[in-house]
Amino acid sequence: MSQQVLKGNLLVAQGGGPTAVINQSMVGVVLEARRYAQVERIYGAVHGVEGIVNEEFMDLTRETVANLEAVAATPSSGLLSTRVKPTPEFCKKMFESMKAHNIRFFFYIGGNDSSDTVRIVNEEAQSQNYEFRAVHIPKTVDNDLVINDHTPGFGSAARYVASAFAGINYDNRALAGVYIGVIMGRHAGFLTGASALGRVFEEDGPHLIYFPERPFIIDNFLADVKNVYEKYGRCIVAVSEGIQDETGEAIVTKLQDNVERDAHGNVQLSGTGALGDLLVAEVKAKLGIGRVRADTLGYMQRSFLGCVSDTDQKEAREVAEKAVQFALIDNLDGSVVMERTGDYAVGYRLVDLKEVAAKTKHMPEEFMNAEGNNVTEAFIKYARPLIGSDFNPGAKLRAPMVEKILNK
Amino acid sequence: MSQQVLKGNLLVAQGGGPTAVINQSMVGVVLEARRYAQVERIYGAVHGVEGIVNEEFMDLTRETVANLEAVAATPSSGLLSTRVKPTPEFCKKMFESMKAHNIRFFFYIGGNDSSDTVRIVNEEAQSQNYEFRAVHIPKTVDNDLVINDHTPGFGSAARYVASAFAGINYDNRALAGVYIGVIMGRHAGFLTGASALGRVFEEDGPHLIYFPERPFIIDNFLADVKNVYEKYGRCIVAVSEGIQDETGEAIVTKLQDNVERDAHGNVQLSGTGALGDLLVAEVKAKLGIGRVRADTLGYMQRSFLGCVSDTDQKEAREVAEKAVQFALIDNLDGSVVMERTGDYAVGYRLVDLKEVAAKTKHMPEEFMNAEGNNVTEAFIKYARPLIGSDFNPGAKLRAPMVEKILNK
Repeated sequence: MSQQVLKGNLLVAQGGGPTAVINQSMVGVVLEARRYAQVERIYGAVHGVEGIVNEEFMDLTRETVANLEAVAATPSSGLLSTRVKPTPEFCKKMFESMKAHNIRFFFYIGGNDSSDTVRIVNEEAQSQNYEFRAVHIPKTVDNDLVINDHTPGFGSAARYVASAFAGINYDNRALAGVYIGVIMGRHAGFLTGASALGRVFEEDGPHLIYFPERPFIIDNFLADVKNVYEKYGRCIVAVSEGIQDETGEAIVTKLQDNVERDAHGNVQLSGTGALGDLLVAEVKAKLGIGRVRADTLGYMQRSFLGCVSDTDQKEAREVAEKAVQFALIDNLDGSVVMERTGDYAVGYRLVDLKEVAAKTKHMPEEFMNAEGNNVTEAFIKYARPLIGSDFNPGAKLRAPMVEKILNK
Repeated sequence: MSQQVLKGNLLVAQGGGPTAVINQSMVGVVLEARRYAQVERIYGAVHGVEGIVNEEFMDLTRETVANLEAVAATPSSGLLSTRVKPTPEFCKKMFESMKAHNIRFFFYIGGNDSSDTVRIVNEEAQSQNYEFRAVHIPKTVDNDLVINDHTPGFGSAARYVASAFAGINYDNRALAGVYIGVIMGRHAGFLTGASALGRVFEEDGPHLIYFPERPFIIDNFLADVKNVYEKYGRCIVAVSEGIQDETGEAIVTKLQDNVERDAHGNVQLSGTGALGDLLVAEVKAKLGIGRVRADTLGYMQRSFLGCVSDTDQKEAREVAEKAVQFALIDNLDGSVVMERTGDYAVGYRLVDLKEVAAKTKHMPEEFMNAEGNNVTEAFIKYARPLIGSDFNPGAKLRAPMVEKILNK
């Protein structure tokens, strides 16, 4: 494809929930695109697809490298984001705006909904015989995009969760009790599983891990907590915000009467401590344990400043560079996917947008134990490289005890 | 005091809530004590004062330097902790145990209650004419010890809170709404104030900060949120878990009916999302804003793995070394206090245990604005050095906007 004729402006945008490395991908597109003579201007849409319809484009041709690199190292979406899920009509408007601005290359960084948006916009361009290359760049802390071995954003969120639980394990040893940590992930338990990555010794928490992929039976949960508490005098539980019972009903709605729902009828799971508090009340009431505490890990999981996986940063940058190369060198549309090619190494390839669009990946069976209350070694092996280098789980004293004199 | 005659075993223990650097102080005692010939064995009491009464002493003489340094870099109390507040009778038992084990030097790392324990044990020794040196080493994430400019543990917790809110500011820009973050600190607002340390631009959050030292008037809070939301289209609030109304009633009890109380009759504030959820409900009901979210920052504030202030680490180590020097070289008892001697530098001196014991420091008036809804520049100047070096608040894009074609 050395006889490239397609020439014009390039647009990058970010959609959905932010991650700690989504700006690495945005900056990866901008800096890679600067190498190609056929790219005239590099625009960034503000607030994702909303900015495209409203013609809110930032001229990133006029950004400095130093500031781009500083933004790349900053969590959340530098171009701001949106939760709007475009209808085919909305996509048509997006395309009209892009056409008016002579956008010939479009890169959208987002999850499975975003890949579907790219697909529809691309079809609109084809139906109008408008020469146009569109590529979806993956990101999501939930790690739930199909085909991909994992997705940019997950590794840093997993590092946050692993660091939180490693610290909580030391805290809970010092002042014993039951601790319940509620973790993001409505449908996929990968991030909840990451709570296990800081464990060193057999007695280290989290001792119990519950996923949205397996039914959460309250009586089993209480029996599990009782067993662990009797064994260690303490118990740390990691639970996905999305846990549901055998019938698919969310536990948070099962345990209380009034719950908030969003426009799609989904129960609000993030930004509230309700599920943790309800589980605490159950443990106190049914097991009679005194010190029971819950934390909902909240938005820090995706945007805490300074907790980032270097592996995740590098991959988020690379996946964007590859996206630009597929469109600009190979003249292709699609979704870039990440494959694991070694232990540990990754490669990138382009797949048809339809293969990724609007599909959800779940935790494979072999990543969860039979009881559905912990991860397996296979999960640890899978996830550990993703949280990056220099992850130091800390140490404990190991000196011998002094012989007793008075109380022996 | 070159003619030192006091000779025997040394004991170190940790009390109260853990911090990210309390092990630096413990290890500081152990390594410094190894230099003195009159110290025979170095013991660590397991679970603080409980371990003393139960004779649960770890022989830290037999720890390696490599493992001690690894523990020093690990959050929470390596010797484990306790919430027991000793009575004079309990202190008598503690002293009997120490006497039986020929403990001649006692170092207790903790807050204001711990300093009171040291005082009582020391008086017991004096009344029995038992030669004994006892020194209190300060620690608390709340930063509420009197005389001290600040206390070890605060800087790292403040760095966590500053990092969380800096990240939340980027997140809340990307997907706008009202965000409420609830921060530890029952009586002192220092840690809540630290939420401001990541602000760079005037529009950066947190936009509103509420302290336990000022009455929290719900109508004023709602008016404040409304003002900020109208100005910026978003609003970030940092609120202390200990906020109370004009009469001293905790807001969390004012807004709900059933609240848990501890043995001392204190309302449980940590390990529950109740206050945040109640404030969210108020904002939604009274201001009609759609996207309102709350996080309770939880135990990560004091024990998150890998978020530590290097300044705090260094000082926690030094304050312990000084404690040993005061007892071993100068033959003195007391509480080590930290003074600010330069901008930025600290010094250490020993004060009488009575001066620190069971007293609480509050945010000075000049650290809070007149409205009681934000910190002042004086607070920023005070707190910024404490969170350590390499605190990088991130960056925003600053490219110009492209001229509109369709929607102008």
